[in-house]
Amino acid sequence: MFNKITIVGMGLMGGSLGMACRQRGLARKVVAVVRRPSAVEEVRNHDAADEVFLEISDGVASADLVVMATPVESIPGLARQCRGALRRGCIVTDVGSVKQSLVSRMERLLASTCHYVGAHPMAGSEKSGIDIASPALFEGATCILTPTKSSSPSAVRKVRKFWEALGCQVVYLSPRQHDLSIALVSHLPHVAASCLVNALARSSPDPLSAVKLAGKGFKDTTRIAAASPNLWVGISIENRAAVLRSLKSFSHEISEFAALLEKKDRHGLEAFFQRAKQLKESSN
Amino acid sequence: MFNKITIVGMGLMGGSLGMACRQRGLARKVVAVVRRPSAVEEVRNHDAADEVFLEISDGVASADLVVMATPVESIPGLARQCRGALRRGCIVTDVGSVKQSLVSRMERLLASTCHYVGAHPMAGSEKSGIDIASPALFEGATCILTPTKSSSPSAVRKVRKFWEALGCQVVYLSPRQHDLSIALVSHLPHVAASCLVNALARSSPDPLSAVKLAGKGFKDTTRIAAASPNLWVGISIENRAAVLRSLKSFSHEISEFAALLEKKDRHGLEAFFQRAKQLKESSN
Repeated sequence: MFNKITIVGMGLMGGSLGMACRQRGLARKVVAVVRRPSAVEEVRNHDAADEVFLEISDGVASADLVVMATPVESIPGLARQCRGALRRGCIVTDVGSVKQSLVSRMERLLASTCHYVGAHPMAGSEKSGIDIASPALFEGATCILTPTKSSSPSAVRKVRKFWEALGCQVVYLSPRQHDLSIALVSHLPHVAASCLVNALARSSPDPLSAVKLAGKGFKDTTRIAAASPNLWVGISIENRAAVLRSLKSFSHEISEFAALLEKKDRHGLEAFFQRAKQLKESSN
Repeated sequence: MFNKITIVGMGLMGGSLGMACRQRGLARKVVAVVRRPSAVEEVRNHDAADEVFLEISDGVASADLVVMATPVESIPGLARQCRGALRRGCIVTDVGSVKQSLVSRMERLLASTCHYVGAHPMAGSEKSGIDIASPALFEGATCILTPTKSSSPSAVRKVRKFWEALGCQVVYLSPRQHDLSIALVSHLPHVAASCLVNALARSSPDPLSAVKLAGKGFKDTTRIAAASPNLWVGISIENRAAVLRSLKSFSHEISEFAALLEKKDRHGLEAFFQRAKQLKESSN
């Protein structure tokens, strides 16, 4: 499929990508770029790449596909750092969770050299790091591609085939529509999960004992609150406007529920729960 | 363990209880009480009881343990209906999700005849009905008992042994402490899950497509939004004061997060996520 794929960043996403690309034979050579010297050995131990580089320009040289798999806010800086070393006509994609500002920056940075197509595979975990990477991570996941009118149709086709070859179902959204939708289905739930845990921590005289009482409902609802704070600070700030908008809409729902409960409005409360149940069920 | 156990209500909880009691031989006879005539056959098909009655007074007669497994707000009415038929010295327990008002009503209703010990097994599902009942439902679950100073110590001991025999880990809380803690670890997460889905429904131009983009984060965070609206209206109203208090505390966290994000306060946001991560991890 490709001659040489370079993956920049070897955490859960990058590590899983490397393993999957090798296992599925998507390139003659899979190259990894890492930041920490100790990560070189980790990548080798996990068989996640054929070669590992610490210097990004060395890693991307002669690659025909580069996948940026670092936290979203670091991607443009890395692209700036390595763009002189990119092969002319090379395709660059990424796994960033926020697209609008990223895509416009990447298109500007890479326009003269190669083809950028933004991607966001909806796969991951509240845990991070190559230790939990798996070549099956992307199987069955939705991968959102965010091409624009400046995207090369043939590059978009190749990137689509790449993610499909990893087991993803590919859908297209504009960068703006991506950010608005993902604020609602990913970023807001993350913030809500952390708020649930923090509300418990602040309101309970003994939060740890209270958590131990909890059933599967609490565990599932708050699972993602264990995710990397640093990663989620980056995502929240990167998608700030849409996240703030989704929080406003969420607060509005909470106030509405509280008002119904305040006046013991059985019908209103039932309609409220029913509305949510219906959307959940129609999406199964 | 008991001569005759009667379970009132044969949904997910009651059905699972019946199956588990029979499988583990906790009584010579397991009797079920149902409301709908068509449920008689369902209980038989699931081998969830030795006998099934439509008339509660017939079902509870001569039982030495009665477990009320109906929605919480219907329990006192059913107790009033059948208390004349209860054997003197019989023990009554339940699976209700709210305890303070229930326990005081049940103690008043049953004081002259038998021993009531409130229980709340932290097990269940967003689905309901005997069709998904399982004798393993209670294995490994926490079961909160809420005895009071009027409880008979020997009845409390027997109820504890009963829930332990079903595989539960038993803890004791006062009815009030139960309601405050459970508002935070169960009722609030339920409301939050429904609010997340409703915020999406209201804010997205195409909610169904947006949900289809979602990864495991959204699915887990909102799983319980598919629960029975009717059941949760009852629980919310029954635990109204504590739920309203938990919603206030939750709204406070959301406002705090929004304020930090508004001013792009990286350190504040990181501390916010970190606080939640820490409690999640220390409770694993």
